[in-house]
Amino acid sequence: MSETRVSPLAPAAFPPVATVAGVRIAVAAAGVRYSGRDDVMLAELPPGTTVAGTFTQSLCTAAPVDWCRHALAASSGHARAIIVNSGNANAFTGAAGYRVAEHTARSVAGALDAQAHEVLVASTGVIGENLPVERIDAALPALLAGLSAPDPQAWEAGAAAIGTTDTFPKGASAPVAGTSAHVAGIAKGSGMIAPDMATMLAFVFTDVALGAETAQECLAASVERSFNRITVDSDTSTSDTVLLAATGVSGCPADLHMAAFRKALDAVMLDLAHQIVRDGEGATKFVAVTVTGAADDAAARAIARAVADSPLVKTALAASDANWGRIVAAVGKAGQRADRDRLSIWVGDEQCASNGVPHPGYSEERATEHLLGRNIELRVDVGVGDGQATIWTCDLTHGYIDINAGYRT
Amino acid sequence: MSETRVSPLAPAAFPPVATVAGVRIAVAAAGVRYSGRDDVMLAELPPGTTVAGTFTQSLCTAAPVDWCRHALAASSGHARAIIVNSGNANAFTGAAGYRVAEHTARSVAGALDAQAHEVLVASTGVIGENLPVERIDAALPALLAGLSAPDPQAWEAGAAAIGTTDTFPKGASAPVAGTSAHVAGIAKGSGMIAPDMATMLAFVFTDVALGAETAQECLAASVERSFNRITVDSDTSTSDTVLLAATGVSGCPADLHMAAFRKALDAVMLDLAHQIVRDGEGATKFVAVTVTGAADDAAARAIARAVADSPLVKTALAASDANWGRIVAAVGKAGQRADRDRLSIWVGDEQCASNGVPHPGYSEERATEHLLGRNIELRVDVGVGDGQATIWTCDLTHGYIDINAGYRT
Repeated sequence: MSETRVSPLAPAAFPPVATVAGVRIAVAAAGVRYSGRDDVMLAELPPGTTVAGTFTQSLCTAAPVDWCRHALAASSGHARAIIVNSGNANAFTGAAGYRVAEHTARSVAGALDAQAHEVLVASTGVIGENLPVERIDAALPALLAGLSAPDPQAWEAGAAAIGTTDTFPKGASAPVAGTSAHVAGIAKGSGMIAPDMATMLAFVFTDVALGAETAQECLAASVERSFNRITVDSDTSTSDTVLLAATGVSGCPADLHMAAFRKALDAVMLDLAHQIVRDGEGATKFVAVTVTGAADDAAARAIARAVADSPLVKTALAASDANWGRIVAAVGKAGQRADRDRLSIWVGDEQCASNGVPHPGYSEERATEHLLGRNIELRVDVGVGDGQATIWTCDLTHGYIDINAGYRT
Repeated sequence: MSETRVSPLAPAAFPPVATVAGVRIAVAAAGVRYSGRDDVMLAELPPGTTVAGTFTQSLCTAAPVDWCRHALAASSGHARAIIVNSGNANAFTGAAGYRVAEHTARSVAGALDAQAHEVLVASTGVIGENLPVERIDAALPALLAGLSAPDPQAWEAGAAAIGTTDTFPKGASAPVAGTSAHVAGIAKGSGMIAPDMATMLAFVFTDVALGAETAQECLAASVERSFNRITVDSDTSTSDTVLLAATGVSGCPADLHMAAFRKALDAVMLDLAHQIVRDGEGATKFVAVTVTGAADDAAARAIARAVADSPLVKTALAASDANWGRIVAAVGKAGQRADRDRLSIWVGDEQCASNGVPHPGYSEERATEHLLGRNIELRVDVGVGDGQATIWTCDLTHGYIDINAGYRT
């Protein structure tokens, strides 16, 4: 769909992504909206698989989000399949939209001898148009025939099938130390939202054995440290969905390897989250905003988010302009405790400000040198406590305007 | 300073602005940062003038804001002068910055036989550089010699002197019905913040007689209905300042004409606020976002602000793209009660959505026709109550990126 060139922040190639025992995936070209490309992915999961989900905080949720919430409750956190389409978000489609999501789940469940509420559904694409569900029905035989254990090529095909304005497919994996098991996942997203083509989605799989409640707790904690720490444009989609499925097929009980599992899960989630920022619409720089010295971690996070969401900070970054006054202003608007007269600011390793005034010996030249790179680090110490947090974002460029002011035509 | 062409949303000419009895103003070229233009304005007020102020909610306030807060308290809301410079915001300048503001107040007070705390100071411009106060001192004799009752030309000169990235000077006035008195004011601002040149400022004068506490109450209420209802880019400056000075020289006690006074004050404040949006950085469209059917007025305002601040809504407006799905997404992220399945959306008079689905007979062509104009109206009914509010904003264009990604060079 996208004619855009690949993001300058993209990895050189799709990374090697490990197989997860028990998971089988397939893709197909259903023609939901796009032609000439795959646009639907089916992930089949073995009986006994537990599943956890976190979803958008939007109050105008898309129908598949409503269906997933229902299904997770009805199945007590178990699933046999995840089906995802791109091209249509099935959002703002009323009761008919919910019936479409439910119908899709029933069709897949029937083919797999499962219950409808054991099939999770995600959709991403245009808002406010009815999803032509018959096209997904028609693609189902090809999907079922194509199911295979995901090798790196299959993961990449899956990631490509669920993409919309993405300029590269996103995947990551990590071994669970001390076991033969892995965590592996794919994601799509090129903005916290690009609502016409909507959303960020991530599907993460593991072959450790994990109780449903533990899976939900692990996922929620990991989302807090990964996807909830990124922002492209401060907008929130109607369809954001992150699912974690644990097949248990490796025979490794997560309970005995919880620290290793969490570490692997966090690594995969953070990698995928970073890849979404690296594919941020129009992005030319990957930016880590770290706040220290806040009243607590939540305050640090709110301040870091205010800096990361500030259009004026983001446009300055696009220009490699060491305009740290804009960081001061963003800290000031965050509504969190900060001591203006103890504020310190760093751009990369160069300290711009200390104790609320320009830092003696500050070199704008050295700060600019750092800002001319692709990977930017901003740090602010607000001087009131021990709270700290990092938020990842990208710059705001003409490319963002091009993509979003001209998208539907 | 600005080489930018005048905003396409600017009024055809500076409006006729009424004289306010007792107020005298003067401008001078102090060379604080700019050369070849006036950059300092002095407004002299007669003994007995009451004054009220509202300031930025930023926690990293500029020194002049701190001084004004101190002075208003120390004088019990009385003032003899307001002095304003452009080119340097005296922000993030530590204790030295406060001494500069205080020194400026003392210099003016000495010349007018007043107390230092009867002189209010505002500064707008670059952040984090010491203000060369000796240049203001040097300009003081010329300012004192130039004081005169402000005719329309003098108001325009005052508005021009306090401007930074503004592309046109901003003034407005209104008669207080049933009296010989007026409310008149000037403002600067081209973003809620453009921190390198910072800020929005407004100075409003009246010759009604108004107690200091009443003045503060009237100003605060009017700010809520005007300056607090606009957004250009969601950023908040370190220096935002709105002052209201009441000379009483007309002999009309506001107490006897309170409704007429409030009406005139609101008219001037809203006019100035709209002019700031019309000069929004890169703006090509003036946009009113009205939310109805919210739980209460505060909820309506939060939802309207979420729509008005959404980069995706603003870029769609720039492209005259009737992409109402982005409005749905913005409503969803506002964190306020809304019934997705009762949501209705209008672009101008064209209804796009009703009851949470596309409106029957919706014509994208008619919606686009409205969006091709300069004055845009968006309306959302969220279907849960009687709360309503309007927020004014502008679109997000390549011009915004140009101005903010290249400003300091």
